[in-house]
Amino acid sequence: MGRVICVGLGPGDPDLMSLRAYRLISSARQVAFFRKAGRAGQARQIVEGMLCDDVHELAMEYPVTTEIPVSDPEYNRLLAAFYDDWAARLADLAQAEDVVVLCEGDPFFYGSFMHLQSRLEGRAEVEIVPGITGMSGCWTASGQPITWGDDVLTVLAATLPEDDLTRRAADTDALVVMKIGRNLPKLRRALKRAGRLSDAWLVERGTMPGQSVRRLEEVEGPVPYFSIALVHGQGRRP
Amino acid sequence: MGRVICVGLGPGDPDLMSLRAYRLISSARQVAFFRKAGRAGQARQIVEGMLCDDVHELAMEYPVTTEIPVSDPEYNRLLAAFYDDWAARLADLAQAEDVVVLCEGDPFFYGSFMHLQSRLEGRAEVEIVPGITGMSGCWTASGQPITWGDDVLTVLAATLPEDDLTRRAADTDALVVMKIGRNLPKLRRALKRAGRLSDAWLVERGTMPGQSVRRLEEVEGPVPYFSIALVHGQGRRP
Ligand SMILES: C[S@@+](CC[C@H](N)C(=O)[O-])C[C@H]1O[C@@H](n2cnc3c(N)ncnc32)[C@H](O)[C@@H]1O
Ligand SMILES: C[S@@+](CC[C@H](N)C(=O)[O-])C[C@H]1O[C@@H](n2cnc3c(N)ncnc32)[C@H](O)[C@@H]1O
Repeated sequence: MGRVICVGLGPGDPDLMSLRAYRLISSARQVAFFRKAGRAGQARQIVEGMLCDDVHELAMEYPVTTEIPVSDPEYNRLLAAFYDDWAARLADLAQAEDVVVLCEGDPFFYGSFMHLQSRLEGRAEVEIVPGITGMSGCWTASGQPITWGDDVLTVLAATLPEDDLTRRAADTDALVVMKIGRNLPKLRRALKRAGRLSDAWLVERGTMPGQSVRRLEEVEGPVPYFSIALVHGQGRRP
Repeated sequence: MGRVICVGLGPGDPDLMSLRAYRLISSARQVAFFRKAGRAGQARQIVEGMLCDDVHELAMEYPVTTEIPVSDPEYNRLLAAFYDDWAARLADLAQAEDVVVLCEGDPFFYGSFMHLQSRLEGRAEVEIVPGITGMSGCWTASGQPITWGDDVLTVLAATLPEDDLTRRAADTDALVVMKIGRNLPKLRRALKRAGRLSDAWLVERGTMPGQSVRRLEEVEGPVPYFSIALVHGQGRRP
C-alpha cells in the first residue's frame, strides 16, 4: 500500500506552515489539492514556489453545485461521486509513490479531506499532518487572546439556523463563527439578539494578503469565503 | 521600543512548529519560557538543540501555589506579582535586542503569555506567532476528524463545576476538554450523565514522546498535565 499524506497548510501565510509540512511539500513528486472550477485554489497558492520542478499536480475540482440546494439529494449524490472518483485515483497513484494532498488550515477541523479519508480505508495508508487553524490565524490577527482561564469556547458554522446561532452565541464566553459568506445578515441578527454584536469582530483573509480586522457591526455587504467572526472571552486574569 | 515576540511552539513535536517559529527561535539571542519550579519545562524541551550557542536563557518560574486554593485572593496576588515582575524584566531586556518568549501550542488559546502582554502595553512592542494548538495535535493523534459539515464544537476546561460540564457536554456535537489533571473523576461523571462517556477519548501527550490514545471509559487513575478529552462530531457526510 502506498501513502496518501494530507498536509495542513495553516491559515494562509506560507511562513506559518509546519517544518514537517514544508519538507513533505517541497520534496513531493505528486501533489493534489481541492479547488473550485476555474479558480487557482487557495491551497495551491499557499505553496506557490515551493514545489519540485518535475512535480505531478492534480487539481481536484469540486463539481458545480451552486444551483442545487444543500438539502437536495442530488447535491449529496454529486459530491459523493466526486469523492469516490478521487479516492480511487489517489489510491492508484499512491501505489507508485506518496501523494501529498494539500489542505487549508488543519485537515481534521472542518476539512474536505475527511471525505476522501473514509473512502481510502484499506486502499492506501493515510497520514495526516496537523496545521494551524484559520481561527488561530484570525484571533492572532485580532491582537487579543480568544480564551483565558476557564472560558468556554464555542465554534459554530454560520450555516446553522438563526435561532441556534442566537442561543449558542448567548450561552458561551468566547465565540468563533466560520463559513460566513452569504450568511452574514443572519449572523448579525443572531449576534444582536444574543447581545454579542457590539463585541464581535470580523477577520477577513487572516494572515493572507489583504487581511482585514473590523468590528462586525461596521461590516456591510458581502464578505470573502475566508472570513471568521470572533467574540473574545474575558475570563479570570491575575 | 524593543520587541517581545511570543512564539507558539505547537503541540509538542518540534517538527510541528511553524517555519517562522523555527527561524525566530534558532536565531534568538534572548529566549524566555515559563516553567514550574524544579522542572525542565515543556516549552524549553521542545526547542532543545535549536538555540544559538550564545543564547541568554530566562526561565520564568511560576510561584508555588499548590497549597493555596484558586479562589483565595492570595493566589491571585502571588501570580499578579510574578507577571508584573517578568513584564518589567522583559520590557527592559527588549530595549537592547528582541526577546523570544516560548509558548506551548497557540499563545492566544488559554496561554500564559496573555498575562504578560497586557502588562507590556506601552513598554515594548509585542508580536505573536500563532501555533498548532494542543487539541489539533490530539485529534490528529486520534485518527478521526473532530468536526464535519456544520458540527458545533465546544471547548471546555475540566475545572468547571460538574453541572456545567454535564450540561455543555450534552448540548454539543463535538467536544474538547482541556486542563483535566485532578478533575478526571468529575469529568467522567459529567460525561456519563451527559450520555457522552462511551464516545469519549483521552489523548495524553499528543504528538510528544509517550503519546497515548485511549477510550476515556478505560482510563483509571491520574493523567499527565498534557491530556485532552475528545468527543468527535458526526456531522453531514456526502
Ligand atoms: C471548510 S472550512 C476549513 C477550515 C480549515 N480546515 C481550518 O482549519 O481553518 C472553511 C472556513 O474556514 C474559515 N477560514 C479558514 N482559514 C481562514 C483565514 N485565513 N481567514 C479567515 N477565515 C478562514 C472560513 O470561515 C471558511 O469559511
Ligand atoms: C494552559 S493550556 C495551554 C494550551 C495551549 N496554549 C494550546 O494551544 O494548546 C494547557 C492545557 O492544554 C492541553 N494540551 C496542550 N498541549 C497538549 C498536548 N500535546 N497533549 C495533550 N494536551 C495538551 C492540556 O489539556 C493542558 O492542560
